Amino acid sequence: MTMDREPSASTEEEHVMEKREINHPIADGFDHETQEVEMKQKGGVIVEEEENKEPSIERIFEKVKVPSWQEQLTVRAFVVSLVLGVLFTFIVMKLNLTTGIIPSLNVSAGGFGSYLFGMSQVIASQSENEKNASQNVKNPELGWMIGFLFVVSFLGLFSVVPLRKIMVIDFKLIYPSGTATAHLINSFHTPQGAKLAKKQVKALGKFFSFSFLWGFFQWFFTAGDHCGFANFPTFGLKAYENRFYFDFSATYVGVGMICPYLINISLLVGAILSWGIMWPLIDKKKGDWYSASYSPSSLHGLQGYRVFIAIAMILGDGLYNFLKVLHRTLSGLSNELRKKDSNVLPVADRSSPGPMSPSLSYDDQRRTQLFLKDQIPTWVAISGYLIIAAISMATLPHIFQPLKWYYVLVIYIFAPVLAFCNAYGCGLTDWSLASTYGKLAIFTIGAWAGAEHGGVIAGLAACGVMMNIVSTASDLMQDFKTGYMTLASPRSMFVSQAIGTAMGCVISPCVFYLFLKAFHNIGVPGSAYPAPFASVYRSMAILGVEGFDALPKNCLTLCYVFFAGAILINLVKDLVGKKWSRYIPLPMAMAIPFYLGSYFAIDMCVGSLILFVWEKLNKAKADAFGPAVASGLICGDGIWTLPSSILALAGVNPPICMKFLSRGTNSRVDKLLGS
Amino acid sequence: MTMDREPSASTEEEHVMEKREINHPIADGFDHETQEVEMKQKGGVIVEEEENKEPSIERIFEKVKVPSWQEQLTVRAFVVSLVLGVLFTFIVMKLNLTTGIIPSLNVSAGGFGSYLFGMSQVIASQSENEKNASQNVKNPELGWMIGFLFVVSFLGLFSVVPLRKIMVIDFKLIYPSGTATAHLINSFHTPQGAKLAKKQVKALGKFFSFSFLWGFFQWFFTAGDHCGFANFPTFGLKAYENRFYFDFSATYVGVGMICPYLINISLLVGAILSWGIMWPLIDKKKGDWYSASYSPSSLHGLQGYRVFIAIAMILGDGLYNFLKVLHRTLSGLSNELRKKDSNVLPVADRSSPGPMSPSLSYDDQRRTQLFLKDQIPTWVAISGYLIIAAISMATLPHIFQPLKWYYVLVIYIFAPVLAFCNAYGCGLTDWSLASTYGKLAIFTIGAWAGAEHGGVIAGLAACGVMMNIVSTASDLMQDFKTGYMTLASPRSMFVSQAIGTAMGCVISPCVFYLFLKAFHNIGVPGSAYPAPFASVYRSMAILGVEGFDALPKNCLTLCYVFFAGAILINLVKDLVGKKWSRYIPLPMAMAIPFYLGSYFAIDMCVGSLILFVWEKLNKAKADAFGPAVASGLICGDGIWTLPSSILALAGVNPPICMKFLSRGTNSRVDKLLGS
Repeated sequence: MTMDREPSASTEEEHVMEKREINHPIADGFDHETQEVEMKQKGGVIVEEEENKEPSIERIFEKVKVPSWQEQLTVRAFVVSLVLGVLFTFIVMKLNLTTGIIPSLNVSAGGFGSYLFGMSQVIASQSENEKNASQNVKNPELGWMIGFLFVVSFLGLFSVVPLRKIMVIDFKLIYPSGTATAHLINSFHTPQGAKLAKKQVKALGKFFSFSFLWGFFQWFFTAGDHCGFANFPTFGLKAYENRFYFDFSATYVGVGMICPYLINISLLVGAILSWGIMWPLIDKKKGDWYSASYSPSSLHGLQGYRVFIAIAMILGDGLYNFLKVLHRTLSGLSNELRKKDSNVLPVADRSSPGPMSPSLSYDDQRRTQLFLKDQIPTWVAISGYLIIAAISMATLPHIFQPLKWYYVLVIYIFAPVLAFCNAYGCGLTDWSLASTYGKLAIFTIGAWAGAEHGGVIAGLAACGVMMNIVSTASDLMQDFKTGYMTLASPRSMFVSQAIGTAMGCVISPCVFYLFLKAFHNIGVPGSAYPAPFASVYRSMAILGVEGFDALPKNCLTLCYVFFAGAILINLVKDLVGKKWSRYIPLPMAMAIPFYLGSYFAIDMCVGSLILFVWEKLNKAKADAFGPAVASGLICGDGIWTLPSSILALAGVNPPICMKFLSRGTNSRVDKLLGS
Repeated sequence: MTMDREPSASTEEEHVMEKREINHPIADGFDHETQEVEMKQKGGVIVEEEENKEPSIERIFEKVKVPSWQEQLTVRAFVVSLVLGVLFTFIVMKLNLTTGIIPSLNVSAGGFGSYLFGMSQVIASQSENEKNASQNVKNPELGWMIGFLFVVSFLGLFSVVPLRKIMVIDFKLIYPSGTATAHLINSFHTPQGAKLAKKQVKALGKFFSFSFLWGFFQWFFTAGDHCGFANFPTFGLKAYENRFYFDFSATYVGVGMICPYLINISLLVGAILSWGIMWPLIDKKKGDWYSASYSPSSLHGLQGYRVFIAIAMILGDGLYNFLKVLHRTLSGLSNELRKKDSNVLPVADRSSPGPMSPSLSYDDQRRTQLFLKDQIPTWVAISGYLIIAAISMATLPHIFQPLKWYYVLVIYIFAPVLAFCNAYGCGLTDWSLASTYGKLAIFTIGAWAGAEHGGVIAGLAACGVMMNIVSTASDLMQDFKTGYMTLASPRSMFVSQAIGTAMGCVISPCVFYLFLKAFHNIGVPGSAYPAPFASVYRSMAILGVEGFDALPKNCLTLCYVFFAGAILINLVKDLVGKKWSRYIPLPMAMAIPFYLGSYFAIDMCVGSLILFVWEKLNKAKADAFGPAVASGLICGDGIWTLPSSILALAGVNPPICMKFLSRGTNSRVDKLLGS
């Protein structure tokens, strides 16, 4: 898994990189590792439009000399990507630990919000009397996290290389996000594109400043728990108790502006269904369905229903889409094979840099030529994979005692096949199934290790290893597609991806560690940083190891209902056609607020509303500047966590608490303060 | 004094009235009775521009038949003005009781914020051991307030009538606000004007709704004192203690958008000078300059410095401007007399409806003709004045024991002369000196009555009588000028003014009484409704009766300094010329925050800032819609007081207190709530 993928873009045109990363997150790849919601629609639309408008891009740049692969790697590119890498890691880490919903910022900050943090004591303590708890806890430490990431991330890099030519040149897969990014980069180099981009950066800067200052202003009023704007009972105290409130988060208003309306509505529907109806009803069964003595955050109480029903929906949705993508992958592959058989030219000839097939457009000819110029020998890739696999098998069992070397070996045998499937499916549908493969690893390896031998830790660690390989395959392939369309050398891309990966392996754990030290309540349900997927992933591991015994009463029945419901909704969505399917909520998105409540869904709906009104008033402007404004909102608030964590570490506390008291409580407080 | 002047406008074109009143407050007259700050600049500018653009307005309307004076009085007009009268009275009452700064909404809500409420126990109790306090208190009761207003308001109406022709036809005085209003009404009847007005009403409606809903939303968080957005320590708790904070009041943001930049800056400068520098310094002298045992709201403590230094500045500014306007009035009059002497035609001929002077434009000819068509006989006016004067002399001493009948007689002898001066000065400069004449009455009648015989009440009552007559003279004259320019019949105007006055005499006291019953802390310093001028007016009365003994130590010296300072600043402003004078603050505006603190000044500066940025972005749009947006903000928030007072009377209390606690206090509170 790459920790930081900017370098892959920066190799082509360094100064473009900033714009690409910040400016049009919409058109960019989507982080499927830590995040479960599909938001690919928009990217696809952009691609189609641009494809129609610009028949030959390379003719425009015909006279521009393409730099050699060494020239493509500049110091400036690496410095800029280092700085942006740190900043974006802060933003994504914040998103990871607050809701796990991450719009397409093309940065993955590891599994810190999910499997890695799921091993910690904080998360483990939620399932109060978990069996064998002591051997199933691995608290985050800087040392082992960096080591682990170095071992598994580079493995992904090597597994990708041999697939590169097959996917991009031979199969000519679309990779919608990668293609959209390439179109964007190319468009920046046209005069109008550059002008628009400058304006967009200006808009972004404005809203970045606003959002940053808003975060700064909010900080002053957060002396103490449940203080400040983030706990504003916008719809009253009763609604606040059920987590219905607008929490004035610029980040999630921005995220809502980027996510399709359907996702935001799905979140809200899920929130109303769960926190508005189901949880209050289940809460009435306290003492009957579950003991009232459990703490509110215990998985044996109400929290258990929240987590396991959410997991059921996520798994149902995941299973459906896994089968769907697998079906398309297999039928696509069989088509490809049939084509190959009927073709007179051998595969090697079709893609050689020499005589081009006459059916290829000028663009494709030129791109293919440059893409095949700087090859990375396959033996380098294979021997790299084998060496790192060997190192992994030797070191991983030392980091995670329950993860035996033969589990690792099994994963590494199956991984390339799964990586191939995922890269192919993603090329067709833009959808990475990495998290689904990760869950597969949790259940299989967890069950294999067993409850007696630290199966929870083994499952979570295996999940990390698997997800890294599989997601890297699809993510880097998107980048190779971008590089192909922007005439970047594959060799420079490989080198920069390696350097970027190394940067990420250090930056991400450090940022996570900073969060952990600065904010004392990370992982605590109901706090500012509940890290929802950490809990979800650990609970899945417990399920895999202990089976359904872990569930409170009637929870399994509800889980079956929601599992089936998720599959049914997906099926109906696919059957009714595009016209109606856009009114049917996404089960995956519905599941997230089951655990968290609806506050961020309300933020995101506010973002939707802003965009909707803007589009009504001025569609062209909203389309051009909406993403820039949204990114500004997300980044400003996200970057504010950097100074705010430094303030927290330095022991500087906010001076004021903005508190919300009921009238009765207020008069008690006034009495106290008066006396 | 008219309580409600809409009918005077509505007589000409009923459906226009709404727009006129709401839409362009900027171009309208300014309420000088309760409010001390001059904001006439803008009105003047508008007049000049429109005068240049449209050489003959009456030619456009040449073919439109002017209705007879009876036809001009419609039921619809009176119903609409009744409804608007009630609503505007709420708005202006709120402004009166919060800061006393009232932008030109062309509605005066009586002396409820100043002399009338200055008589009450609440205000009297601020000067703790005031001599003869018992005879100097007259608490507001619905009965005597309505009676008092009926007696004094109609008097003003009759004193105006004989002056009407002299001021408008003979002297051809400009009356900038009245002229601007007339231009506005005329412009509404051109196709472009009607289109713009429709858009403006839409903008107003939008911001009205926003402001109303914002007021509604704020209400939920105000369970208890010092709760809610109005007590938001925007700049920290220390600044809040010194009343530097943004209180999220849509009203004063709107007021700030209407008031010239100079006024808003003056307010801020005054606030910084007083609450930022002077009061903290004087506070350090506690125990030396004044006894520490006085309550914070006592006039013998720090509050005394605040009030009396503010009074010194107001009086200094008032004196300077009185002399200035008097000088211009006298020189203008002597010019007029000299012209008359050198003119071959007698005055009567120049203004007769028969053969027109050839130097008159078509507009003036037509307007003069209609203005002189429906005369009100002078004997009606004079006998009306005498009858009401007799009734006053008989009844007022019954309402206010210390106000003997001969005081009333003396006032009524001098009043017509002062009314003439004020109407003339206002016609030249747009500046009504009514409050200055009122203060004159406070001091002279107060001193005459003496401390032993309820001089405070006598002074305040005399102030009310005097201000009503004098301000009516200038205000109604502005309306007659408007009527002249819009071809309204003077007779229909007189009738509608009488009816409007009667409405106002009932509506205003009722609204005030509603405020008094609904909001328990009216007149309490530091509360939501401090009624600053009530305190200022009572303090002036005390000064007039008791002399300077009432002042705390060193206060007199400071008063002299600020009195002289106010005169000096005005002198410098007049001497340096227009280029520099617009950078010199207005002493009158500086004095208001001396008493109140800077929170509303900050609101108003926010309004200025919004307008400034808007003007930078789109000057034309800001000019066209700025006043509409501002009026929407003012009215929405103001009208919200109507339902909020009803809620308060019905005993419906807000459910939540948004409280701001220091970190230390917060942990104490958390301990209390935890246990």
